[in-house]
Amino acid sequence: MLKIESPTLVLNEDICRKNIKKMADKAADNNLIFRPHFKTAQSIKIGEWFKEAGVEKITVSSLQMAEYFANAGWMDITVAFPINILEIQRINKLNHCCSDLQLLIDEGTPIKFLDQNLYKPLNVCIKIDSGAGRTGFCTKDENGITKALCEIQNSKNLNFIGFLTHAGQSYHCRSTSEIIEVHNVTTTMMIALKNKYLSIYPHLMLSVGDTPTCVIAENWEGIDEIRPGNFTFFDLMQWQIGSCSLDDIAVEMLCPVVAKHQSRKELIIYGGAVHFSKDFIVIGETKNFGLVYKFGAYKKISETNYVSALSQEHGIVRCTDSFFQNIEVGDILCVLPVHSCLTADSIGFYKDKNAKYYDHLKSAQ
Amino acid sequence: MLKIESPTLVLNEDICRKNIKKMADKAADNNLIFRPHFKTAQSIKIGEWFKEAGVEKITVSSLQMAEYFANAGWMDITVAFPINILEIQRINKLNHCCSDLQLLIDEGTPIKFLDQNLYKPLNVCIKIDSGAGRTGFCTKDENGITKALCEIQNSKNLNFIGFLTHAGQSYHCRSTSEIIEVHNVTTTMMIALKNKYLSIYPHLMLSVGDTPTCVIAENWEGIDEIRPGNFTFFDLMQWQIGSCSLDDIAVEMLCPVVAKHQSRKELIIYGGAVHFSKDFIVIGETKNFGLVYKFGAYKKISETNYVSALSQEHGIVRCTDSFFQNIEVGDILCVLPVHSCLTADSIGFYKDKNAKYYDHLKSAQ
Repeated sequence: MLKIESPTLVLNEDICRKNIKKMADKAADNNLIFRPHFKTAQSIKIGEWFKEAGVEKITVSSLQMAEYFANAGWMDITVAFPINILEIQRINKLNHCCSDLQLLIDEGTPIKFLDQNLYKPLNVCIKIDSGAGRTGFCTKDENGITKALCEIQNSKNLNFIGFLTHAGQSYHCRSTSEIIEVHNVTTTMMIALKNKYLSIYPHLMLSVGDTPTCVIAENWEGIDEIRPGNFTFFDLMQWQIGSCSLDDIAVEMLCPVVAKHQSRKELIIYGGAVHFSKDFIVIGETKNFGLVYKFGAYKKISETNYVSALSQEHGIVRCTDSFFQNIEVGDILCVLPVHSCLTADSIGFYKDKNAKYYDHLKSAQ
Repeated sequence: MLKIESPTLVLNEDICRKNIKKMADKAADNNLIFRPHFKTAQSIKIGEWFKEAGVEKITVSSLQMAEYFANAGWMDITVAFPINILEIQRINKLNHCCSDLQLLIDEGTPIKFLDQNLYKPLNVCIKIDSGAGRTGFCTKDENGITKALCEIQNSKNLNFIGFLTHAGQSYHCRSTSEIIEVHNVTTTMMIALKNKYLSIYPHLMLSVGDTPTCVIAENWEGIDEIRPGNFTFFDLMQWQIGSCSLDDIAVEMLCPVVAKHQSRKELIIYGGAVHFSKDFIVIGETKNFGLVYKFGAYKKISETNYVSALSQEHGIVRCTDSFFQNIEVGDILCVLPVHSCLTADSIGFYKDKNAKYYDHLKSAQ
């Protein structure tokens, strides 16, 4: 049995496998390539569950992460991050190991330098900004896109395979209709782009990726590949967006209670920014770093019982009087995390209810 | 020479040693015990610089951190975190190793349980909330404090040594006068408490700890010990508070530029939440996750060139036109971090300009 002494991220295999299966089924039903983003779990063991669900292609967000999974036998990897030419040696090594490695060309990527410094041909996608405003060419930047395509066309070692986007603006949605609106705008934009270049690149594919649209949207015509990641665990951010229910969240942090402040009805948990990260959601006008319930008790989750602040190792829990009365120092609280990707990365490993250990890239270095 | 391929936290030994010496000198000049908080650097090698400055007593924020430093020969350690009774075995082991181990009693700590489960006597401080509102007994909670003192008095294994506080409210200050006001209120409160119990505990000491007051305040009469940590590196948060200048910041993150977006004059760096943490400061009405300048160029820092957003691995840099024109993909930006403690914990190691490696607890597990 699992013994909790310090903050421990506990993974629920059943929920996680259910989340994986549901997304794999949805991809299959819509004739989509399912290339899940492994930046959420960053775990070889959890990767096995994807393999069992039929997954052979994956997405990662760094070369280091790509190496981690290549060493575990994953041979078809997309690094969904603009090419970092300072890591050219790493790129060459990885390209040597993987049967299919895809990297991203963004605005400013020195394509000629890349071409000249590659040891063997490499697949590239062009990153498109479909509204998130982070990375990628604007779709209206026809000159930029055409210039990049020409440079790729004229290169010896670069093989253009398609356009890739991440509709991160879906994270601002708060309803199904808003998510579908983001999806429709994004896919319309991407399909128009595809149609424009299809005569020159008849095999070009479209890859899209955020969890909210991948969960909610039903119309996938014209899209070839999805790359969601967060759905593996889900979290409070996805719950607030409307992509999942609280019961879909596959990880929770178990934290010892270390102090009980009667005058302000607050509990202090061992569990801080170094365990959770500092991401929060706002409910009403209140910052919320996690919803809590008592470990071992009936899993009753309420917005009234939550982590209100985090410092390096401490969390402050605000709660109802009855919740407060029912907790003593030495009890354990379960905390549903706000952002499971960053929480997993902060703590760097998982355990399940039977105390079985699951790897994470962060602890495996 | 240091070769940067991916986000690297670079430590400036000269600045760090200067910060340490200045605080050690200040403590000596004011007859204060200097017990620096090692949660900032979490490094055995950097700990040596403190030793060379005469430091023998340290503060940490977890038992794990205490073990790390005890294994490196530090024998007088205060764990400035409420006692977590679920770690009683760890406490006993540590108490066996260290000549002087001090732990904190907070509201709700089960003192009897602790007493019954200790193998040998242990020093304890009572944690006082002097206005930060995180942990500790309110000074006006006389019943609570007296009850805790009685339980300690009646225990076999607990040795009360004094009151400890962390005036974390100083982090809301934005001027020297505000910091001094926090210091005066805190010390007046703590000294009154000391005077109340001095006849019963003639050796009781007062320990205070935040970096802003330790840097700025001049009047230390009645206080016995200081435990600042962040001053080791400083950061933009301390700069905004008024505890340091930008030149006092001893760590900076070197990040490759991976994309350059002409239309919105933004750069994308390889450097995200998993490297920096998600802490930010607000300048004007703008979130700021770090100030940037070009690596290798004259260190000219301006509030106009800054990290405006972080996702898991990406940072978005907003900057002036002239800064933007001067940067290409493949260049490296230096980022002054917002919160050096969390940044160091996120990335888990340091290098200096000669590529020498410095340990951090996070990577040493």
